[in-house]
Amino acid sequence: MYSEQMYELGSKSSMIREIFEYGKQRAAVVGPENVFDFSIGNPSVPAPDTVKKAIEELVLEGDPVLLHGYTSAAGDMGVRKAIADNINERYQAGVKPELMYMTAGAAAALCSVIRGLACPGDEFIAFVPFFPEYTVFVNSNGGKLVSVGVREKDFQIDLDILAAAVNEHTKAIIVNSPNNPSGVVYKEETIQALAKFMKEKSAEYGHPIYLIADEPYRELVYDGLEVPYLPNYYDNTLVCYSYSKSLSLPGERIGYVLVSPKVEDAQKVYAAVCGAGRGLGYVCAPSMFQFVVGKCVGQTSDISIYKYNRDLLYDNLTSYGFECVKPDGAFYLFMKASEADAVAFCERAKKYDLLLVPCDSFGCPGYVRISYCVQPDMIKRSLAAFEKLAAEYK
Amino acid sequence: MYSEQMYELGSKSSMIREIFEYGKQRAAVVGPENVFDFSIGNPSVPAPDTVKKAIEELVLEGDPVLLHGYTSAAGDMGVRKAIADNINERYQAGVKPELMYMTAGAAAALCSVIRGLACPGDEFIAFVPFFPEYTVFVNSNGGKLVSVGVREKDFQIDLDILAAAVNEHTKAIIVNSPNNPSGVVYKEETIQALAKFMKEKSAEYGHPIYLIADEPYRELVYDGLEVPYLPNYYDNTLVCYSYSKSLSLPGERIGYVLVSPKVEDAQKVYAAVCGAGRGLGYVCAPSMFQFVVGKCVGQTSDISIYKYNRDLLYDNLTSYGFECVKPDGAFYLFMKASEADAVAFCERAKKYDLLLVPCDSFGCPGYVRISYCVQPDMIKRSLAAFEKLAAEYK
Repeated sequence: MYSEQMYELGSKSSMIREIFEYGKQRAAVVGPENVFDFSIGNPSVPAPDTVKKAIEELVLEGDPVLLHGYTSAAGDMGVRKAIADNINERYQAGVKPELMYMTAGAAAALCSVIRGLACPGDEFIAFVPFFPEYTVFVNSNGGKLVSVGVREKDFQIDLDILAAAVNEHTKAIIVNSPNNPSGVVYKEETIQALAKFMKEKSAEYGHPIYLIADEPYRELVYDGLEVPYLPNYYDNTLVCYSYSKSLSLPGERIGYVLVSPKVEDAQKVYAAVCGAGRGLGYVCAPSMFQFVVGKCVGQTSDISIYKYNRDLLYDNLTSYGFECVKPDGAFYLFMKASEADAVAFCERAKKYDLLLVPCDSFGCPGYVRISYCVQPDMIKRSLAAFEKLAAEYK
Repeated sequence: MYSEQMYELGSKSSMIREIFEYGKQRAAVVGPENVFDFSIGNPSVPAPDTVKKAIEELVLEGDPVLLHGYTSAAGDMGVRKAIADNINERYQAGVKPELMYMTAGAAAALCSVIRGLACPGDEFIAFVPFFPEYTVFVNSNGGKLVSVGVREKDFQIDLDILAAAVNEHTKAIIVNSPNNPSGVVYKEETIQALAKFMKEKSAEYGHPIYLIADEPYRELVYDGLEVPYLPNYYDNTLVCYSYSKSLSLPGERIGYVLVSPKVEDAQKVYAAVCGAGRGLGYVCAPSMFQFVVGKCVGQTSDISIYKYNRDLLYDNLTSYGFECVKPDGAFYLFMKASEADAVAFCERAKKYDLLLVPCDSFGCPGYVRISYCVQPDMIKRSLAAFEKLAAEYK
């Protein structure tokens, strides 16, 4: 009567969504100020004023037929030029607007890339911990997700562990840096070693192994850290970008796929990605927000609050004895559960109305994700609860 | 290296797009006023002022974090309620917001429905002439498109022709009324007969055959014609709607899937459609335009110009001896080519800078589509060219 596989996807909502819904119900009972919801990654800072100004200008001065009309399927060329120019200024990457495909956010970008690249039997590698929807995006679009462990002490990539997972079916390796949920940024030497390894393996198997750079958190880094721009380290790289976090526009669904000009047969790979987007029903990325991001190139929301939140949480939680990875970027704190079963740990945290996400579905049992894109006051109010939770394990 | 099938989709752009691009090149040579481009279905009337007002209100008064934030995956419940209430007022259909899924336009709606319903070997039927992207949407999402002829004198559905195509693999029948490209609205008695037939066949094969109502042109009808609301005629109906034409917002990608509450196992079918959307990478429909359409429920652009265009074209072209179907709705004139080969006919029309679309890819060789969502002045300037074209066949 209908597709069982799609019914499964539609009826089993993600763990994160479930906890988020529970938080809303709980807030109705004990009051929102007494629920400490660290579940969801919805930016807590507003879009910058330049976004508001851009919308006003476009609506007041723009021709509505053009503003709300179809752009070319790959996106407005003027917008693509503006974005490509900014990337080339920042990273000297020589990217081309002709190889840029505007998409409805990073999810659409990833699905288009995976569907565009996937041939029967192809495997796509993701390093743990990874965003659980990767499993959905890969397995629903012709690929098979292969989960690969990392170096536990710092969550950097371990080439020995990777080598054991790579084979002739490996089509691509997904790199998400800054990482959701660990907050880790892969170091330049890590990326250099990964690139060397992938080049060797591509030669060994006689076909390119693509690097898929999933970069919604690129702009969210702390302490002046530099995030290596992957097309500058590895030729066969496709970048998936989203403005959801950098401009606080997650609901507007706007981002892009960028095929590096150094990709082998770049034009054909680009056509395959655009063709996949066409088959998935993406006619064009939302037109007005294409023009908005085009006018806001190089801008970000005021992300200073995330650094404040990171320090507030990290310093206090570690002082209570919790074992945390210090985030280099993004807005997640990755913490070791105080017992082997992270789900049981999160259940215990619920007693104090602390809503944390167990990372089993992120490929990392025994850990939890604490999303700190929240109001600092909530973090302050939550600290006593974290302290009580820690005491339970003393 | 990449998916050949997706490369095909990405490298072979649609015939319509090709003609549209040719028109732009040609305009650069002979001047835009001398090119009569009837190729593309991009609304020529602006969105109504209420859309502009809604955007301004939302941006000026709304909370940007909520306005641009993720809505629930199925869409904002307030918006869904507003839309469902309006549908129930107009059609007494008893539809439920809980069975409504906001999508990035009709393309996303169709792909989600097809992917959600399709099981291996399933066939989806479309009546000729049909929007060529149906072939892409169905064949890329787990189904097989089956093209079915209609009654040539009036392009209404012919149950005898349909009966020959229906079998145990038939999962759904797509009905697009008003029709792109014929402009035909299926009469109430046609729909009643179709519903009776589908009910019998569902019983015969022991599983529901779904009716997929693709309705982007519902609001664009002339001469006070009523378009039957299909959920009121057939229980197992899913409606795919878009605001692209009714509110002139094609680039914004906003529409919905509505699962009729009378669908067998409606909740499960709805979950399968939402699950398919999740697998296709649709996180949520663009949030701000969800709120915009919620505020503009029941409104349309000023579509009176389309009626003026229809009469201007139909009356003149028939007077030149062209054989045309008089459109009941939408903004396309479906015309018989003056020679057997519509592609050759369109090439000949090009001599006069008349850009028409041959309907071979619409499943109707020998016909052309004339898109009259254009400025009336262009139609007036084009008439002499049409007259010369007609003279060639005298």
